[in-house]
Amino acid sequence: MGAIFGASLPKVASDSPPAAISHKIPLETMESAFPHFYYRFLDCSILGFQQLGGGAVDVFGAIEAGGTKFVCAVGTGPDDFEMCSFPTSSPEATMEPVIGFFRRHQSLRAIGIGSFGPVELHRASPDFGHITSTPKLAWRNFDLAGTVQRALGLPLGFDTDVNTAALGEARWGAAQGISDFLYLTVGTGIGGGALVNGKVLHGLLHPEMGHIRIPHDWAKDPYPGACPYHLDCLEGLASGPAIQARWGIAGVDLGPDHPAWELEAHYLALGLANWVSTLSPRRIIMGGGVMQQAHLFPLVRRQLQRILNGYIQSAVILDGIEEYVVPPQLGNRSGVLGALVLAEEAASRADS
Amino acid sequence: MGAIFGASLPKVASDSPPAAISHKIPLETMESAFPHFYYRFLDCSILGFQQLGGGAVDVFGAIEAGGTKFVCAVGTGPDDFEMCSFPTSSPEATMEPVIGFFRRHQSLRAIGIGSFGPVELHRASPDFGHITSTPKLAWRNFDLAGTVQRALGLPLGFDTDVNTAALGEARWGAAQGISDFLYLTVGTGIGGGALVNGKVLHGLLHPEMGHIRIPHDWAKDPYPGACPYHLDCLEGLASGPAIQARWGIAGVDLGPDHPAWELEAHYLALGLANWVSTLSPRRIIMGGGVMQQAHLFPLVRRQLQRILNGYIQSAVILDGIEEYVVPPQLGNRSGVLGALVLAEEAASRADS
Repeated sequence: MGAIFGASLPKVASDSPPAAISHKIPLETMESAFPHFYYRFLDCSILGFQQLGGGAVDVFGAIEAGGTKFVCAVGTGPDDFEMCSFPTSSPEATMEPVIGFFRRHQSLRAIGIGSFGPVELHRASPDFGHITSTPKLAWRNFDLAGTVQRALGLPLGFDTDVNTAALGEARWGAAQGISDFLYLTVGTGIGGGALVNGKVLHGLLHPEMGHIRIPHDWAKDPYPGACPYHLDCLEGLASGPAIQARWGIAGVDLGPDHPAWELEAHYLALGLANWVSTLSPRRIIMGGGVMQQAHLFPLVRRQLQRILNGYIQSAVILDGIEEYVVPPQLGNRSGVLGALVLAEEAASRADS
Repeated sequence: MGAIFGASLPKVASDSPPAAISHKIPLETMESAFPHFYYRFLDCSILGFQQLGGGAVDVFGAIEAGGTKFVCAVGTGPDDFEMCSFPTSSPEATMEPVIGFFRRHQSLRAIGIGSFGPVELHRASPDFGHITSTPKLAWRNFDLAGTVQRALGLPLGFDTDVNTAALGEARWGAAQGISDFLYLTVGTGIGGGALVNGKVLHGLLHPEMGHIRIPHDWAKDPYPGACPYHLDCLEGLASGPAIQARWGIAGVDLGPDHPAWELEAHYLALGLANWVSTLSPRRIIMGGGVMQQAHLFPLVRRQLQRILNGYIQSAVILDGIEEYVVPPQLGNRSGVLGALVLAEEAASRADS
């Protein structure tokens, strides 16, 4: 695993280039398909409106561990944080600058991690905090939480990327004051995190919402699906890579009038209808790279109403769908800000 | 609404026949399709192992309000309760003996109702406790909770039939000690209730799980589906009436080797796979009339594993599926016993 776990790790300058990047999908493809969430090099900036207060306030650390980049932050909330991104390569090459970033901040009270998955979330498990059966082989069974905790010695919160993004939106974004909602991301994969009665839904492992089965419209869509486990589950039909594979063009290069979007909205709305019927959310937040195509929102809303066909008799859905299916208010920072919430919760646990 | 709401209502003998029964489906059809949950006449019995203790213990009232019968009970739990069923006809003709049953018990502390739906569950709503948009026209917008509360003057708990059954199984049945599970009923309709982090999932209204969309196997199954809102949602494809309409024979008359069951298991397993991916339950309890066909359980379990295809890496699913998908331990009493739990909770709220 290398030297990053030892106390002798030298400080890493945040602007030094990372080690070689290895991706299964060529960089060019990823960049053209998803430029908004792809960072080839480091991207560090002071983003808060206030400077960090130092030791006088409770400052937390946050990691949004994604398949293309690790976004790290220190701070207390959206108006007070410093953020830095590192490309996801091997665990060793990724974790070294990540740990270095936090070592520059001596006053951290706790750290929160929202990670791509699947991950082990049960604290009683010997594999707690590991990334488990990911198709990213270098990261399979990697002890992400343990690596961070051993290096930094801080109380630690850990959850999936989408659960963490849901927490961020609940605290500062589009789900403030809403006890039951769904946060969905549609990008290289599809994932969902839900709050039920004000608490994150975990259950047996954690949801894998992208893998629900929906009716595949074979007449209009002979594309067999992209999921290596299920072919035409929702993720297999409606993720960014599925759009690109079906049409031979990346989503960002398809014009808003391309028939791809009506089909995409149809599949996404089938997914939403299933989650409305199962989770009865009070709001659905749709983020991720594909949903940057803002013209998708009215299509998805209309198709959701058509599919539900008046069965769910709620004014929120029948008359207020524009406020029911919404984009994240925190943009692409829902995850890293949610990780601050995880850190805050970890600090509270440590204090109690 | 008649005299049952007034204090002057005469006591109704529990063995007197109910008023005329009116059903949209001929009685003969219903009886042959679902003899195990159809009661044409009153069915009253002392079922507990102990006699009721009278005023010395906390005794609760319970109503399982179903589309074919209202099951009423007084008691404290599965070892100590008295139960009586009344056929569901008009609200007036049904509620009169129901209220009469509880009036014979002076020492009740509270009453719980688990009702067919859709129902309004938000206490802040003026329609709290009403059955809302049911296709049973006589019951549409009927104030079930208010009728019971005005007649009996007791603290009252109210939830859907499936949420209530889930509560019963959580307290005394197959989900004891399990914080996150799904209770499913497959009968004249399909419905699901879930506990998440130990609490009942309600959300915006309440789940309508039977109405999720799944892939319809048109090649094997040209039957268009029975749901008046969605045609081939899960309920439209896999409810008891759908089985009968597709094959022209009621489920109970199909032999265990009939191809109907492999198709039924396939559809049900698609539903379960979607709920596993969404709710991540630690156990799934399958009750209801159709699941009385015990040979369905191994078919459903095998198909669920096939559909998930190893993606959910949990020993509970991969190696312990017999304990993961199970019948209710309380048989067809999950609902009425769960209503005792609702009553207990209502009494606690009233005391605090």
